Amino acid sequence: MTNETPISADIFKQSLRLLAGGVCICTTAMNGERLGLTMTAVCSLTLEPPTLVVCVNRDAGAHDMMRATKRICINFLASEHVELAELFSSTSFKGSGRFDPAKWTDMKSGMPALNAGLAALDCSIIEESTVGAHSVFVCEVKAARLNPEKEPLVHFNREFCELLPIA
Amino acid sequence: MTNETPISADIFKQSLRLLAGGVCICTTAMNGERLGLTMTAVCSLTLEPPTLVVCVNRDAGAHDMMRATKRICINFLASEHVELAELFSSTSFKGSGRFDPAKWTDMKSGMPALNAGLAALDCSIIEESTVGAHSVFVCEVKAARLNPEKEPLVHFNREFCELLPIA
Repeated sequence: MTNETPISADIFKQSLRLLAGGVCICTTAMNGERLGLTMTAVCSLTLEPPTLVVCVNRDAGAHDMMRATKRICINFLASEHVELAELFSSTSFKGSGRFDPAKWTDMKSGMPALNAGLAALDCSIIEESTVGAHSVFVCEVKAARLNPEKEPLVHFNREFCELLPIA
Repeated sequence: MTNETPISADIFKQSLRLLAGGVCICTTAMNGERLGLTMTAVCSLTLEPPTLVVCVNRDAGAHDMMRATKRICINFLASEHVELAELFSSTSFKGSGRFDPAKWTDMKSGMPALNAGLAALDCSIIEESTVGAHSVFVCEVKAARLNPEKEPLVHFNREFCELLPIA
């Protein structure tokens, strides 16, 4: 292990690469426009009410619409979704055109939900706070669609990975 | 995929099992006592300042000491650490005795850091808020020790897993 070093931007970025995370696409929609972004900064919070925390950069294209609608759908990606994860983190192809109608079906709320993800969680943003360049959204889950038999897509050290149970 | 259903406690628990997460042990220490707990509710927040979000149940043994010291060490576990993850989530064996001196070396701050984890991030809690039974801690990283060549331990669907890069 390296010796203890005071944190620097480089060391912190290295550290974050070492935190494995399930890959999600968080979506929102308003006035016929749909937006979404790939992220791993999603974690469970409370069972009662059923909440998760989602951290979104205020510069992200979908951020302002999420704040305006107070509604997002958190989609957990499956291991077959590497291209979709890349599409929703692309800087060149943005906006509603990312949503292939064959792959996405709206929740009753109107939020875009991926048909073949492990979970599509339709959420209301019930609290928000600001830290640095990011908003921290506390998201209360209102409705769900699940595919519990699927395998997840995980991001670690700048690579997409699948899981292997430890015997 | 299942049809859309309004959320219930059961459906929400099922959903959370489908979110893969890197396994961490978050530790703290005060007056010679050391506490720690296994968790996956850790996610990155901002690069500037370098922060992560950590969500801790207020009933967790380490919660009150974390609030009192405003200091925690977030340790990212390696795939060899299944037994350690189980030890720090055990309800029968608690307290300082969990910390084998051969495996743990304090950071300069006094926070217990795992020698063989992927990362030991020594943090100050700079903000806290309450949601349901949990505290949401915004943790600013002050110092780090890294083992970037290690493989992470991941939790998914009540199993410990290791990663396999997708070719």
